[in-house]
Amino acid sequence: MLKDKDIKKKLELINKKIESVGKGASKGVKHLMGKIDLSGGKRIRGLLVLLTAELNGEKNSEKAVDIAAGMELLHHATLIHDDIVDNAEKRRGEETLNKMAGYQISVLGGDFLLANAANFILKQQDIKIFNVMFEAISKVCEGEIEEVYNKNNPSITPEQYYQIIQSKTASLIRVSVQAGAVVAGINGKNYDALSEFGTEAGMAFQIKDDILDITSDEPTLGKTAGSDIREGKATLPLIMAMQNAGRGIETAAICRVFENGKAAENTKNIIEFIKKYKGLEAAEEEAAVRIKAAKKHLKAVKDLNADALTRLGEMAGYIIDRKN
Amino acid sequence: MLKDKDIKKKLELINKKIESVGKGASKGVKHLMGKIDLSGGKRIRGLLVLLTAELNGEKNSEKAVDIAAGMELLHHATLIHDDIVDNAEKRRGEETLNKMAGYQISVLGGDFLLANAANFILKQQDIKIFNVMFEAISKVCEGEIEEVYNKNNPSITPEQYYQIIQSKTASLIRVSVQAGAVVAGINGKNYDALSEFGTEAGMAFQIKDDILDITSDEPTLGKTAGSDIREGKATLPLIMAMQNAGRGIETAAICRVFENGKAAENTKNIIEFIKKYKGLEAAEEEAAVRIKAAKKHLKAVKDLNADALTRLGEMAGYIIDRKN
Repeated sequence: MLKDKDIKKKLELINKKIESVGKGASKGVKHLMGKIDLSGGKRIRGLLVLLTAELNGEKNSEKAVDIAAGMELLHHATLIHDDIVDNAEKRRGEETLNKMAGYQISVLGGDFLLANAANFILKQQDIKIFNVMFEAISKVCEGEIEEVYNKNNPSITPEQYYQIIQSKTASLIRVSVQAGAVVAGINGKNYDALSEFGTEAGMAFQIKDDILDITSDEPTLGKTAGSDIREGKATLPLIMAMQNAGRGIETAAICRVFENGKAAENTKNIIEFIKKYKGLEAAEEEAAVRIKAAKKHLKAVKDLNADALTRLGEMAGYIIDRKN
Repeated sequence: MLKDKDIKKKLELINKKIESVGKGASKGVKHLMGKIDLSGGKRIRGLLVLLTAELNGEKNSEKAVDIAAGMELLHHATLIHDDIVDNAEKRRGEETLNKMAGYQISVLGGDFLLANAANFILKQQDIKIFNVMFEAISKVCEGEIEEVYNKNNPSITPEQYYQIIQSKTASLIRVSVQAGAVVAGINGKNYDALSEFGTEAGMAFQIKDDILDITSDEPTLGKTAGSDIREGKATLPLIMAMQNAGRGIETAAICRVFENGKAAENTKNIIEFIKKYKGLEAAEEEAAVRIKAAKKHLKAVKDLNADALTRLGEMAGYIIDRKN
């Protein structure tokens, strides 16, 4: 779905806005911005803003595009800080800023993008978007902090995992939908249904990301595959495999490997364990359940543009069908 | 001045607000917040908010205190990220979060505080404060990025230095005054004069900080003394000493030391050079000029509470008289 003419137009509008970031800034900032590739990514958050705004007469309007660009910049800011936390070296097929320029300057690069994201969103002078946005940012931090504290903990429950991904990922996807709704003056039950759509789609998105990290390869993924396991992160495929395997020698061995911080050197064995105990299938199923729930919330949306609503549903479908 | 009854009351109000941060959060966040000491600091930004708001009938009002707490949290967030950039180990007499918990979790700790700062400020639902706030945050990042790119560059001009400190420090002090003014409905020429007061006081504050980094000792300062030089940062005392010394063997030697990244091991010689060529006196003089300018801007403020205005002037005086 991400290749049709309308989506192409939307991507162009978002990208054009984003290009302006850092243009009037000082020499050092320009130098740093030259190292940050803002052109990449699937722009799912920006597209969600635009499609949601389109539900109520704001098709690709200037203000919708401003908010879409703001959400993409905010997302990019979180990725830069994420890459510091994870010591990540590759992202979207390129070296990370963390790898290229070091974590010190990356902290400031992320902060600068966050401030610019806020400035884009401020153009609308709408305090309601800010309310949901900063609640979401606080949640993202909370989710990431929980994730760090659960490093090398393979005994995390599915519920704990859902809590973490709801905070760290789904809240930004939810807020993109909410921001699009606010821009278009959508409120009441429609706003609530769209918000829930955002949460479920966001959960599915992260589950799919965690599956692809295991099943995909580096050229397709654009970043190092298997990196979650190497970093000692237990994601849904592993959690479900552990649950399917039950207590026993194999599960105990996997636990030991994680708890001793030796997940990185046992990546292959861990992936075999996940496959043997159908962890990937279970995670795929959960993602599909979430997308079904997301689409159900869309069905509850009334009296808004039916075309845009259909396309939001297609977007949800893409989230679990994608290959990277 | 920071010890009288009124200031004590203001500090209590700010501290009480700040104590609530992270209270309702998840286990990991509470654990992290337990490592962040939010109780310390001089609270200059918070006090500036309260004193400015008091100029027009908002003496210690709930909304003024919310904004004051927000500005202090924002300041603290920037310090946490600063400490990552500088690899700082001590601050306010305690180990930094960076030293205690590592730079990865510190990135998230700073982000979490920033989001909470925004949430405090959002309580007022006043978009104007957000406009000035995010413009200031963007400037702070810009100043810090410029500073990083000027590491080991001793040939930085006073003008470049002023540009950096105006961005990285004065913009947050200016915005504290502006936020206090907005809360109290101060606008027009009074708002402009107060803004300029904030900038000049902020410049003086950073110059004084840079002087103290050379002249003070660790117990008084609460952080490692001489750290600017050790990190290869050329601040005003050195820049002025270089200017006073003119071109010659000594100046060339200092340049070489910085450019070869050997400032840390030559700290003592560099400080001797600064003292010999009256760099400290020149910087003190510049700070005094800035405070004089700041007070002049206060004189242009009309028809507002005279007591609070006097106290803002005293605050400016404290900025250059302080010992830490």
